[in-house]
Amino acid sequence: MTAVADHGLLDPATVRVPSLTDDEAVLAALLDVEVAWARSLAAVGPAPETLPDVVEKAVARLDLDAAQVAEAGEAGGNPVIPLVRALKSAVRDDDPDAAAWVHRGLTSQDVLDSALLLVAARALDRLQDDLATASAALVRLAGSHRGTPMVARTLAQHALPTTFGAKTAGWLQGVLDAREGVATTRAALPVQCGGAAGTLALADLVTQGRADDLAAAFATRLGLRWPGSAWHTRRGPVTGLGDALTTVTDALGKIASDVVLLSRPEVGELAEPVAEGRGGSSTMPQKRNPVLCVLIRSTALQAPHLAASLHTSAALAVDERPDGAWHAEWPVLRRLLQLAAGAAALAAELLDGLEVHPDAMAANLAHAGPLLLAERLQAELPDRLGGGAAAAQVQDLLTRAGAAGDPRAVLRDGIPVEAVSDDELDAMLDPRRYVGVADALVDRAVERAARVDAAAARGAAAEGGGEAHDG
Amino acid sequence: MTAVADHGLLDPATVRVPSLTDDEAVLAALLDVEVAWARSLAAVGPAPETLPDVVEKAVARLDLDAAQVAEAGEAGGNPVIPLVRALKSAVRDDDPDAAAWVHRGLTSQDVLDSALLLVAARALDRLQDDLATASAALVRLAGSHRGTPMVARTLAQHALPTTFGAKTAGWLQGVLDAREGVATTRAALPVQCGGAAGTLALADLVTQGRADDLAAAFATRLGLRWPGSAWHTRRGPVTGLGDALTTVTDALGKIASDVVLLSRPEVGELAEPVAEGRGGSSTMPQKRNPVLCVLIRSTALQAPHLAASLHTSAALAVDERPDGAWHAEWPVLRRLLQLAAGAAALAAELLDGLEVHPDAMAANLAHAGPLLLAERLQAELPDRLGGGAAAAQVQDLLTRAGAAGDPRAVLRDGIPVEAVSDDELDAMLDPRRYVGVADALVDRAVERAARVDAAAARGAAAEGGGEAHDG
Amino acid sequence: MTAVADHGLLDPATVRVPSLTDDEAVLAALLDVEVAWARSLAAVGPAPETLPDVVEKAVARLDLDAAQVAEAGEAGGNPVIPLVRALKSAVRDDDPDAAAWVHRGLTSQDVLDSALLLVAARALDRLQDDLATASAALVRLAGSHRGTPMVARTLAQHALPTTFGAKTAGWLQGVLDAREGVATTRAALPVQCGGAAGTLALADLVTQGRADDLAAAFATRLGLRWPGSAWHTRRGPVTGLGDALTTVTDALGKIASDVVLLSRPEVGELAEPVAEGRGGSSTMPQKRNPVLCVLIRSTALQAPHLAASLHTSAALAVDERPDGAWHAEWPVLRRLLQLAAGAAALAAELLDGLEVHPDAMAANLAHAGPLLLAERLQAELPDRLGGGAAAAQVQDLLTRAGAAGDPRAVLRDGIPVEAVSDDELDAMLDPRRYVGVADALVDRAVERAARVDAAAARGAAAEGGGEAHDG
Amino acid sequence: MTAVADHGLLDPATVRVPSLTDDEAVLAALLDVEVAWARSLAAVGPAPETLPDVVEKAVARLDLDAAQVAEAGEAGGNPVIPLVRALKSAVRDDDPDAAAWVHRGLTSQDVLDSALLLVAARALDRLQDDLATASAALVRLAGSHRGTPMVARTLAQHALPTTFGAKTAGWLQGVLDAREGVATTRAALPVQCGGAAGTLALADLVTQGRADDLAAAFATRLGLRWPGSAWHTRRGPVTGLGDALTTVTDALGKIASDVVLLSRPEVGELAEPVAEGRGGSSTMPQKRNPVLCVLIRSTALQAPHLAASLHTSAALAVDERPDGAWHAEWPVLRRLLQLAAGAAALAAELLDGLEVHPDAMAANLAHAGPLLLAERLQAELPDRLGGGAAAAQVQDLLTRAGAAGDPRAVLRDGIPVEAVSDDELDAMLDPRRYVGVADALVDRAVERAARVDAAAARGAAAEGGGEAHDG
Repeated sequence: MTAVADHGLLDPATVRVPSLTDDEAVLAALLDVEVAWARSLAAVGPAPETLPDVVEKAVARLDLDAAQVAEAGEAGGNPVIPLVRALKSAVRDDDPDAAAWVHRGLTSQDVLDSALLLVAARALDRLQDDLATASAALVRLAGSHRGTPMVARTLAQHALPTTFGAKTAGWLQGVLDAREGVATTRAALPVQCGGAAGTLALADLVTQGRADDLAAAFATRLGLRWPGSAWHTRRGPVTGLGDALTTVTDALGKIASDVVLLSRPEVGELAEPVAEGRGGSSTMPQKRNPVLCVLIRSTALQAPHLAASLHTSAALAVDERPDGAWHAEWPVLRRLLQLAAGAAALAAELLDGLEVHPDAMAANLAHAGPLLLAERLQAELPDRLGGGAAAAQVQDLLTRAGAAGDPRAVLRDGIPVEAVSDDELDAMLDPRRYVGVADALVDRAVERAARVDAAAARGAAAEGGGEAHDG
Repeated sequence: MTAVADHGLLDPATVRVPSLTDDEAVLAALLDVEVAWARSLAAVGPAPETLPDVVEKAVARLDLDAAQVAEAGEAGGNPVIPLVRALKSAVRDDDPDAAAWVHRGLTSQDVLDSALLLVAARALDRLQDDLATASAALVRLAGSHRGTPMVARTLAQHALPTTFGAKTAGWLQGVLDAREGVATTRAALPVQCGGAAGTLALADLVTQGRADDLAAAFATRLGLRWPGSAWHTRRGPVTGLGDALTTVTDALGKIASDVVLLSRPEVGELAEPVAEGRGGSSTMPQKRNPVLCVLIRSTALQAPHLAASLHTSAALAVDERPDGAWHAEWPVLRRLLQLAAGAAALAAELLDGLEVHPDAMAANLAHAGPLLLAERLQAELPDRLGGGAAAAQVQDLLTRAGAAGDPRAVLRDGIPVEAVSDDELDAMLDPRRYVGVADALVDRAVERAARVDAAAARGAAAEGGGEAHDG
Repeated sequence: MTAVADHGLLDPATVRVPSLTDDEAVLAALLDVEVAWARSLAAVGPAPETLPDVVEKAVARLDLDAAQVAEAGEAGGNPVIPLVRALKSAVRDDDPDAAAWVHRGLTSQDVLDSALLLVAARALDRLQDDLATASAALVRLAGSHRGTPMVARTLAQHALPTTFGAKTAGWLQGVLDAREGVATTRAALPVQCGGAAGTLALADLVTQGRADDLAAAFATRLGLRWPGSAWHTRRGPVTGLGDALTTVTDALGKIASDVVLLSRPEVGELAEPVAEGRGGSSTMPQKRNPVLCVLIRSTALQAPHLAASLHTSAALAVDERPDGAWHAEWPVLRRLLQLAAGAAALAAELLDGLEVHPDAMAANLAHAGPLLLAERLQAELPDRLGGGAAAAQVQDLLTRAGAAGDPRAVLRDGIPVEAVSDDELDAMLDPRRYVGVADALVDRAVERAARVDAAAARGAAAEGGGEAHDG
Repeated sequence: MTAVADHGLLDPATVRVPSLTDDEAVLAALLDVEVAWARSLAAVGPAPETLPDVVEKAVARLDLDAAQVAEAGEAGGNPVIPLVRALKSAVRDDDPDAAAWVHRGLTSQDVLDSALLLVAARALDRLQDDLATASAALVRLAGSHRGTPMVARTLAQHALPTTFGAKTAGWLQGVLDAREGVATTRAALPVQCGGAAGTLALADLVTQGRADDLAAAFATRLGLRWPGSAWHTRRGPVTGLGDALTTVTDALGKIASDVVLLSRPEVGELAEPVAEGRGGSSTMPQKRNPVLCVLIRSTALQAPHLAASLHTSAALAVDERPDGAWHAEWPVLRRLLQLAAGAAALAAELLDGLEVHPDAMAANLAHAGPLLLAERLQAELPDRLGGGAAAAQVQDLLTRAGAAGDPRAVLRDGIPVEAVSDDELDAMLDPRRYVGVADALVDRAVERAARVDAAAARGAAAEGGGEAHDG
């Protein structure tokens, strides 16, 4: 009887993400945590100086099988128990005295929580790169299409003119929100360190009162933060991470939803980048399916429910370790990492190669006709026409124009040339001249992107300078 | 770059379930579907009679790697496209003409939806067996403890006496609800068959108008139902399955939550069955953790959110195939199957070996004291005491008794022996004599279990008689 | 300090539903339950025969203020406690002895659960009427547009031809699924009757062993079912109702999502019915917003999350009355009733007056061009062209046609007239001749609608014959 | 036909919150937004200087009925349209020219989104006060019980000793996390200001290019932030608020869950504060239900699902205003505000008056017995006993002690007095001497609370200095 094996067959949205979150990655992180603890015990004392090397060698020899550890994990309810057993046994073979120091002062939850956040930290690094790529692509798109007019749509109907630059600036702001949220969360990811009851009792006994130094050293080695207390039953770090990941799929889901709509054949304003073999249909050769968008949307529809699951668990985190609510978090948190990372990887490619069709945008504007400017006409014409009844008169004119085959002719006919000349009427009906602060929206988004990029560059440097991930 | 591999490391609640739902199982079901289609095409005509054998042989030789199919599935957004490509190529090697008949008239969604429900059907069979075991264990418990009095608790406080028989009867009714829901859902699982747009256009063309016969034959071979139309964008079969699975984890989660509470050291009325190595703590040897319950609860906390995800997708199932909402269903549905099947397997063992401590129940009843019968005293004493103020007098007496160290003495002292003799007072205060219809609750639940068992036996026979699963 | 008052200001999707679910309706149902209990006590004995009249008169005089009861309900955690206090006091004024019989043998949960399901029963009756209207409208649409060809879309791209009849038949099947689910749920709605601990101890004492008769009489008077045991902590009736209601919003959400897409200006195939003042924009007079659809969609996006909330509560229904999970259900269940009833009322109007534009459907078909028939050409041309390379040759031809301005010309040019005559080619490229079993889909859906209508008519008669709702 | 009226009858958890979120509050906020806009238009120009007064007077006279506005809101899909119509009409009565300036440049979404966040800002102020009260109570509890030993429980079983001070410090950290999250969210609440398509086209036209100044003035007047662009379809402000509110119910739900468990009669370590009439049962006079906790838990079980609903909407926020996803947010966001504010108000009272029973804690520690110190014995005894087999020997001793009636005697018997004296053994078995860094946990939490209080005081001052809320 083998455990479940899942290679992503039912999840094409995440197969592109390197296996930063799979069982091997978790197994590696669990062992990294035990090694970091051994190093910290030796550094703070009084564990033997040789401990870290002995443990590292044992880890190198272990060759654990994820499926076997998974199965053995049922009895105790988590995979740490069999993993520690195996690790101690391997250490004992080399150095019988060292074995007692393995995992000493930790509890399973310390190891599992820390390992999961370590996995998260590594996955977030990749996720951030993909979001940065998406963001750079949007900066380019917003710049190139600053002056590309298109129809703005509200409640699925034509509303006013806008520019594709302004639209992509909005997408960009969403991606930047997500990047900042992820960066903040990433920087705050804490180590879990409380011992069996959150009091660090054994660690304190063993180090003769230096438990806090031990925890701090442990955190440093893992590139995580030591918040000064355990969070065994205070699950903010987990729910916050889940929320930040969902913010990523929200932002990308909105973009993908827009792209799907605007690449419908009847609209034709956008198209996904072409790639050999992608988006094809085995039976309908003429089709070009927006596969990247479809897959991104599939992640965005799943993520909110999963993030909610983490909150439900948080509210039920009773005692000093919960009776089920903690266990319910693990697969859910990993799944959220996969979905967000998958969505970011797909979005990076989507936006990097997005096809824009300004001609179709122009055609749809033309099809919308002069009444797309009705708001402007209502604002400007009454003063031009003068008289108390001017507003009602304009309203009536617009209604008649709306019902006519050639609305411009009706407008021209209904407005005296003395009040509004032909040139003035053309200007009033020119969609490019009624896009408000569209350009400023582009500028602001682009400037913010530069700031977020700069912060990311600093963050990367800061992290790179530490000894994180060496455990 | 390999796809995600998950062996259940983070999911001890489901490792016990045989791999009926993993990628191998899905791959097998996808191929079963293609074989069943080939058989149906040959049976209804005009595909060549040799087609089924050629396809079966090709399938036998294929040796597909789930991870590779998963990766190849990204381009088209689902694993069916590369799978069909591989299958056609294998068939072509044997019989070039036959290759054109492979998958002919189907669309990817027909294959994936049908395969997922086939996987579900197989997983549900195992799930039903485990629920039947749980149900049989509850029948035994309810019978043995029909007369075991215990405290009933409401809003976490002592309320009245009940019996452990009545409590288990309530658990049993929940399990029976779940079994009936699953059986109904299982019997109604439909085949998906609509072709590219739900109209069966190609199947109709190819069979010269016998598309409906083809679909019916297809369903029969897969042991599924042909509902007369495709449900590409009408996702009741998927949401209904998700709801039924959640009803399973609801019922088992309620039981596990009760067992966890009643096996707290301070209560001590129940204990999980002992098993070598289970429930231990590496650092706290005296602990015996209720691991089965904890894991069952972890499934029950996840499932509702996943079932909701299926409904969200259903409401967004636009056009003739949705643009992301369909894709969002697959991993979620599988996960629900795993969680419910895992919970059922754990619950079967939990209930089969549940330790019951009538002595602790008695001790807690004694600790609750005579005021546990306050409702009865309020009902009976006023008439005995007589007089207009009797009700207020009883209320006052109960209040005084509640504040006293020996409430029985206060009661005896406050009630004239002429009104209520010592024997009568003992009877009034005997928890065993104030359990209402507790025995009838046991009888009804046990009788219903027999009916559900009988129906299951009939159902199994009926299914076994068909040629289901032979594809 | 007054309690929250909500009149639907933030919920335009539900303001149309008559106030069958508001606080007044709940208050009335709570009192109906107490009256029904008094009647049952008198009928089964030994409560005085005059009890029902006394209680009914007191109820008639009570004039409770929902806000006050709500506020008073905080202390005990539910509104039943102050309501019963007020009712007893009112009865006592008339008949001091009768007061002791009010609510005797019930617990708050019996009253609240029964009242909520009574409210549900009444709301479901209206909901079913609106779904029947929607269903009838779809029967008409499917019939009238049985022969109206249109483009079928998958993954947001053009796929094949279909008919608008087949599309509405699919919508209809979804509505019929929902109607059947609601009818089944409605028929099974149980009364809650267990007393303080689910054992009916006091009722059994008071009736000298006739507690079961009492519960059955109680159920009959309320038009609900007596399932033979209390379901205080077995919440299937609540989760099942939530799931059924979500199935309603799923089905209607899918329809509304389709209508929104197909009434986008660039598609123009459908439009919401016009109503004076609806869908207007204060600033954009030319707009006609699909408000009904937008509001229906808003319900469909909320409902799944709420239904999940009920399942979470069900899994946590510990003890003989849960410590919070029960309380979490009430506002959620009512909200689901409002959302589903609101969606049904909106959908009835939407579908009853839906504008269909066959001309736009034809124009979009024409725009899609002959390659919409590519599947058919791939199936039929190779045989006509003959030779081993025919399939590849057709594939190549389709590719060239897809890239050309006039694909039909390319096709004609690439296929010898001897192989396929002009007439034959026209037939092959006629969308109306490649819609498979579209007509049968219409017929089946229409026939099923007739069956569901007939069952509804029988159901109504059956219910009308009882003395339900007279409590 | 009146709209739904809800006074909290089904929601005792929120009736305590003053009506900061009800329809009246929303109506007031909607009008505040229109007034603030009028003030901004006049300040930035060129609207007449008299405009603000005219609008304020009209608002003062309006006397809108929430139910009527609600009903009228269905036609356009939101309540702003009828509200603006009524406001314009009232202004027109006073000053016909001014009417054209009302709402000029805004769209419904600007008004509704801004008003909802204004309602949120006001509700958050009250919420923060209640959280500060809860936090102060926890500071006191942690201080008083710094040295109160109790059993720490993991997976529902006894694990190790801890102190009630450390336990409350953990609760406090959770509340401080929530307070900081809410404060950050509160400070960032943005005004919505984009006009019909997010470009501020009309505002820009009207102010001759000063749209940005106008938006900034508008924000200042409402005490909200102007983020530099509209967020019509970038819903981070809404999802972030929902997440922060859920973090509140998570933290309070965890506390309430713990209190419910520890006040179970068999545990008896805590009790809710007594209040006249609270927690009583009409039929069971001896009961004292933990009503505050039960209600808090009921909010915590609902909130996650609602927050998820906001994320689902965010991911579907297509176009320049979404087709249903926006509408789905309003009732959900308000509900989350109610639940979190309700939970905070209840928690403030709960924690302020929480009864702590150190004697029961001591009794449970005694009941747990010396094996609660097994971790310590395993760590210290082997060295004392010496010899290679010492660890195994200790393990065996603990096992025997665990099975014995008097485990201390078994331990004493199995450990030579020369290795461990009686005094030393007493020390090793003293729960108060094995609580690790429990005191430091208290200190850190208390110090953090002081910092959070100080920040809140600064924040309040800063906000109080502005002219917020004067609109």
